[in-house]
Amino acid sequence: MSQLKGNLLFGQSGGPTSVINASACGVFQEAFKHGCIENIYGAAHGIKGILNEWLYDIRQEDEAEIALLRVTPSSALGSVRYKLADFEKDDKDYVKILEVFKKYNIRYFFYNGGNDSMDTCNKVNKFLKASNYDCRIIGVPKTIDNDLGLTDHCPGFGSAAKYLITSCMELHHDARVYDSGRITILEVMGRNAGWLTASTFVASKLGQGPDLIYVPESVFDLDRFGSDIKRIYAKKKNVIAAVSEGVRDANGKYIAEYGNTSKQKDSFNHIQLGGAATYLASYAKSVVPESTVRPIEFSLLQRCASHIASKTDVDEAYLAGVTAVKSAVGGQSGCMIALIRENGNNEEYKCTMQTVPLEKVANVEKKLPGYYINADANFIENSFLEYIFPLIQGENAPPFVNGVPRFAKLKKIAVK
Amino acid sequence: MSQLKGNLLFGQSGGPTSVINASACGVFQEAFKHGCIENIYGAAHGIKGILNEWLYDIRQEDEAEIALLRVTPSSALGSVRYKLADFEKDDKDYVKILEVFKKYNIRYFFYNGGNDSMDTCNKVNKFLKASNYDCRIIGVPKTIDNDLGLTDHCPGFGSAAKYLITSCMELHHDARVYDSGRITILEVMGRNAGWLTASTFVASKLGQGPDLIYVPESVFDLDRFGSDIKRIYAKKKNVIAAVSEGVRDANGKYIAEYGNTSKQKDSFNHIQLGGAATYLASYAKSVVPESTVRPIEFSLLQRCASHIASKTDVDEAYLAGVTAVKSAVGGQSGCMIALIRENGNNEEYKCTMQTVPLEKVANVEKKLPGYYINADANFIENSFLEYIFPLIQGENAPPFVNGVPRFAKLKKIAVK
Repeated sequence: MSQLKGNLLFGQSGGPTSVINASACGVFQEAFKHGCIENIYGAAHGIKGILNEWLYDIRQEDEAEIALLRVTPSSALGSVRYKLADFEKDDKDYVKILEVFKKYNIRYFFYNGGNDSMDTCNKVNKFLKASNYDCRIIGVPKTIDNDLGLTDHCPGFGSAAKYLITSCMELHHDARVYDSGRITILEVMGRNAGWLTASTFVASKLGQGPDLIYVPESVFDLDRFGSDIKRIYAKKKNVIAAVSEGVRDANGKYIAEYGNTSKQKDSFNHIQLGGAATYLASYAKSVVPESTVRPIEFSLLQRCASHIASKTDVDEAYLAGVTAVKSAVGGQSGCMIALIRENGNNEEYKCTMQTVPLEKVANVEKKLPGYYINADANFIENSFLEYIFPLIQGENAPPFVNGVPRFAKLKKIAVK
Repeated sequence: MSQLKGNLLFGQSGGPTSVINASACGVFQEAFKHGCIENIYGAAHGIKGILNEWLYDIRQEDEAEIALLRVTPSSALGSVRYKLADFEKDDKDYVKILEVFKKYNIRYFFYNGGNDSMDTCNKVNKFLKASNYDCRIIGVPKTIDNDLGLTDHCPGFGSAAKYLITSCMELHHDARVYDSGRITILEVMGRNAGWLTASTFVASKLGQGPDLIYVPESVFDLDRFGSDIKRIYAKKKNVIAAVSEGVRDANGKYIAEYGNTSKQKDSFNHIQLGGAATYLASYAKSVVPESTVRPIEFSLLQRCASHIASKTDVDEAYLAGVTAVKSAVGGQSGCMIALIRENGNNEEYKCTMQTVPLEKVANVEKKLPGYYINADANFIENSFLEYIFPLIQGENAPPFVNGVPRFAKLKKIAVK
């Protein structure tokens, strides 16, 4: 494979996580090591920044700040939710992208995101290939939803899970302080995949978590939920239920829409969720009128809590970025970095990085397998613990200065 | 002062905090050192546990678990919101309390709580004194609301503030990732006192916090809020506003009631708040229709996040418990432990413990002084930083075992 000389472009896309910047840190720090990579550019707001030529010159950033990206939550370059058309139907964006890539001599392109972003990455790769423009394109996975295919898990998931487990344990202690009856409904992110909500089961197994767990992979039956709450309340006078924001009834209607019909939509035409817990708490009150109810939405907190990130997750997110650059320099393209769990169940956890074809992961959603969900569709099976425990190991907080976290401050100098 | 021999009773009351168990740890570990203290009892659910003789034998607990109370959130013994009648009007409860104290030979009584709890403590003290029952009674302060009188600050406040500041900074990074306009409304606890909401100003000063801060000490004007949001949105296309759950309009009506008229009430006839952010987010949407809005309630999370507790706060909470026991053994009674800031503004922070009369703190609410609130009643003054910074210094997480926090597990063996 001949060496390809040119500039590198990196973009972040989709909902941010606690560790997406750790991958950026990995990409940049690895890129610094390779002579074939000349300028290093960061796209503001992902593909939108490319289309608008909003590019930052990463070589002008301080090394210490680049290093702090490893512990800085959210997408430091800015993110985007933008759907590229199929280029057979409308190639306007693609023509512009090719023009920008030529203008800035982009020969290495890394795109960090989830399903939708891998779709973007795949489409760009196909178009540039069809245009005979030589560029190595690699997707770097991230999503707290953990729903990307062909990878054992996704960077971002372990840290969100660790935050949720810790918070559930703390809330469990709080929710039971009064001897009056109490019902707490926790709402966890996850439109179609229940991985994150299922993670709260770790707290349950420690006797400090939800009594009931509902994921979007199962139909949510309101009557059934009511009788679940009633039964546990009668036994314990204290109920904690965790529900995915994306739970739906038998007709496919989101429970979050029950209480609020005027939901905002994003550019992928997804309804902004949130509100399921509020609706279910008031429903629980109607079922157990003598109880005090409290809905709690973890909302954005669960995807940016870098102060309680999983060290395993941060290290893997970083390594995914490093591996993307190494793979591209080594000649690979049109692929995504996948995290492969190598060990059997009784061996020590070991995760290695491999490349998988982008077109195989684009738009595929990996849901929580049915064997992790109990028969009554209101709790999680013990076998899930073997999957999740390795992913939440180790603590990785940012440095604290004067009592508060010190996050990266990028200069964000525009490329001329 | 003659030595008083007998048993010790300790109770926790009111809304729990991240560090209320640190005071319990201080009380128990100090009590172990004094020969005059024979049995050590913990009341389940505070005064209610005393009335019902729900007492735990603390000497049967493992020392290591008692030590872990220092990092365990919430009220390990259980808490209560129970209002004692004035004993001139109805002495039923008091007669029962005296009976229980005599039966269990309680000569040292420590009650850990906020305003309402100091009222309880004060009333019990007066009644026992009037009944010529010799018992040393000391209140140990706690409240995330920071609204107790005669103390510079309250254990629990610093940790809740540190959690909120850290979370605001993380959310600030998250809330600005898209280049589309966004309005985020953060709801912070505080019925009548804005200390906690004001603490988010630390994040603002670091350029990573709210643009607008509204506390319950000022009348909340909805039109004014709308124009504040509109002005900042026009300038930055991104607005973060922090509001106290207890903000009220000019008629004294809670904004939280605007969207929900059927609020639950507690035994003090306080309306359960929450929902102000949801209402204000939809109001903001009506004012800036092109924005995406997101309400976030920190809810119970802010008062139990021991994983990001302030070390200063934990140490002071512990010391308050220790000092209560030392003071009682030394002969004091009818008082509360107050935290006194000794230094001037330019000196190093130093906090010492003193006793103040219970009757002077009972039911007094110390609100956020007006000089910390800006003239437009939508932000906080710089002078507040000198007050708050010392209180959030140092990090004090629980030990993590296998990726999750290890909290105290008490056996809770009932006293025979």
